[in-house]
Amino acid sequence: MNIFEYQEIYRANLLDSVVPFWVNNSEDKEYGGFFTCLDEKGEVYDTDKFMWLQCRQIWTLSMLYNQVEKKQEWLDMAIRGAEFVKNNGRDAEGNWYFSLTREGKPITQPYNIFSDCFAAMGFAQLYTATKNEEYKAIALNTFYNILKKRNDSKGIYNKQVPGTRPLQSFSLPMILCNLVLELEHILKPELVEETIQLGIHSVMDVFYKPEFGLILENVAPDGSFVDSFEGRLVNPGHAIESMWFIMDLASRAGDKQLIKKAVDITIDTIEYGWDRQHGGIFYFLDVKGNPPQQLEWDQKLWWVHIEAVISLLKGYYFTGDERCWQWFEKIHAYIWKHFVDDRNGEWFGYLNRRGEVLLPAKGGKWKGCFHIPRGLYQGWKVLQAIEEKRSVLHR
Amino acid sequence: MNIFEYQEIYRANLLDSVVPFWVNNSEDKEYGGFFTCLDEKGEVYDTDKFMWLQCRQIWTLSMLYNQVEKKQEWLDMAIRGAEFVKNNGRDAEGNWYFSLTREGKPITQPYNIFSDCFAAMGFAQLYTATKNEEYKAIALNTFYNILKKRNDSKGIYNKQVPGTRPLQSFSLPMILCNLVLELEHILKPELVEETIQLGIHSVMDVFYKPEFGLILENVAPDGSFVDSFEGRLVNPGHAIESMWFIMDLASRAGDKQLIKKAVDITIDTIEYGWDRQHGGIFYFLDVKGNPPQQLEWDQKLWWVHIEAVISLLKGYYFTGDERCWQWFEKIHAYIWKHFVDDRNGEWFGYLNRRGEVLLPAKGGKWKGCFHIPRGLYQGWKVLQAIEEKRSVLHR
Repeated sequence: MNIFEYQEIYRANLLDSVVPFWVNNSEDKEYGGFFTCLDEKGEVYDTDKFMWLQCRQIWTLSMLYNQVEKKQEWLDMAIRGAEFVKNNGRDAEGNWYFSLTREGKPITQPYNIFSDCFAAMGFAQLYTATKNEEYKAIALNTFYNILKKRNDSKGIYNKQVPGTRPLQSFSLPMILCNLVLELEHILKPELVEETIQLGIHSVMDVFYKPEFGLILENVAPDGSFVDSFEGRLVNPGHAIESMWFIMDLASRAGDKQLIKKAVDITIDTIEYGWDRQHGGIFYFLDVKGNPPQQLEWDQKLWWVHIEAVISLLKGYYFTGDERCWQWFEKIHAYIWKHFVDDRNGEWFGYLNRRGEVLLPAKGGKWKGCFHIPRGLYQGWKVLQAIEEKRSVLHR
Repeated sequence: MNIFEYQEIYRANLLDSVVPFWVNNSEDKEYGGFFTCLDEKGEVYDTDKFMWLQCRQIWTLSMLYNQVEKKQEWLDMAIRGAEFVKNNGRDAEGNWYFSLTREGKPITQPYNIFSDCFAAMGFAQLYTATKNEEYKAIALNTFYNILKKRNDSKGIYNKQVPGTRPLQSFSLPMILCNLVLELEHILKPELVEETIQLGIHSVMDVFYKPEFGLILENVAPDGSFVDSFEGRLVNPGHAIESMWFIMDLASRAGDKQLIKKAVDITIDTIEYGWDRQHGGIFYFLDVKGNPPQQLEWDQKLWWVHIEAVISLLKGYYFTGDERCWQWFEKIHAYIWKHFVDDRNGEWFGYLNRRGEVLLPAKGGKWKGCFHIPRGLYQGWKVLQAIEEKRSVLHR
């Protein structure tokens, strides 16, 4: 397939299948906010409102408005969603709940700092679209709150006995690498730089372990390896996703060596995580080859594969490394064979090891309107940029 | 296969394969306690000590000593395990931690009341074997603590916002139905009767829902159905296991109608949970047929299947219902084809939907020396009892 054909596939899947699926099916017109538990055809099967996904959908609709087309329908839907979470989503200290009832009553306490991360991300993107200062303030206050909580993000909900086996987790430093660029337009430059430096250091020097050639999910406070279920855990999708965050930061700083390192880690992680028997990238692995505690370890998840597409295309765009293009084609083929649902739109989220649909829903507690539209948009645009670079070179 | 052959299979698998596997491989001779993370061949791959499994192994070894043979090796190993958890396993208030390091330092706080349940069970059984009053006191104090905490078992670790969607969970009332008989010899008769009545009421009148013909995992405080992920959850293995607890209580009270009801629910749940395509009983289902949130929903787990064997054999013993025998033979065949490892002993714990081994380990964070030896012992003895009943009838 040539590059134009790929571009068109990503654009069309985004605008003709995925975005309409959410726009047509997810809005709760009675209470506000979004239904994310949508079955194969888009019917609502559960009405709880999970804050990760509420805020991520606000982000996606705003991003599409900001980047693709000034469609009033997208912006209005983002604003209605934002008003719902603004009015219902936080406790008295400004921490974001994990979930609400359909009507907006809190169900699950703010034990999870990633609700805050996606709230900051959504409101910052919506601020760009609206210039509404209230949204900017929510994004900023939430971001400051994240920084304040970052070293003890679980707070009173932490079940670990202090001192016995302290661990630091990859997820937050990783997300901050992306979040800081999402909020760059509203943060002080020094805070941006500081957060970026810390983020790059965390990902590349603390969680990336040269002795394994892999990124670990949990390490000791001093960065050393901990031989426990948590310490041995590898989440290839997380590692691969973080590499395009790093490429974005490295590109901004003009750091070609860092880009190359991120490309190498992307390739190494995909080669490590790829299922040679059935194709697709595993969800969880144990770095010492032991059985992981996650029973879903061998499943193939939507976000892992679309994030791999982004990292590979960015890697190819920045470096021209042919391994990136080859893996992109292989993973693209896997995705279009197994995940994409031509009949009812959107993608299936959860496949078993063999690539068969495990759960037919298009959305749920963790899958909403985010990774796929973000990845399709990025794929489309990076493919365009690759093509433009080529034509400049061949001019 | 005739009934003698089945008996011999259960006896031999228990005493020649499963018990030796744990006796030979699981003891930590340096620090005390048991390794439960054992790979296919019995090699230790993780040294953390999970309190559920420590206490369950104490129970199993003591039970074997009490019921099968006065083997000093079993009793000594149970005592050494008990000394380790006695010295390391509880916080200052007597709550049992969830896990310890190999050396015995607490890792995970006592957020989980089932650690207490299995501690009470283990120490009560060990008291029977040793008549050591200290073990009796630990069992009793832990049991009283469970009763004290039963209405707010997660305490400060509860992530649900109070009042929005209160739920009661099936696990604790279910386990109490078994635990009360395990502790009958050390409890006041009135407390035994009261706990039994409450247990039977909970299981049969609150969590069993005639409108579905099934037991739900979570219901509202008034027992009504809650249409949420938690409220729709069916765990067929749990429901099936609880039915032999109920049969034991009903048999003790001579309540034939209750036995018959438990047999009917066993059969209905197996027929509902059976995978008609690949065989085996599903792990989780949504009572409305929606996608469950548990990604491992379609897997086939060791404990579900051995618990089904117990309920079916007891059901057959008490009622002679032919459906019990037919399902017993079907599930027995599935187990011996898929779970039992003739090469290295013990059973595999986790199979994928097709019945292929998903994780080759024989033990881990949740699988130890408990369900299988308990079930094999019960299978062996109930098969003997069925045979004796038959010979009396035909005399």
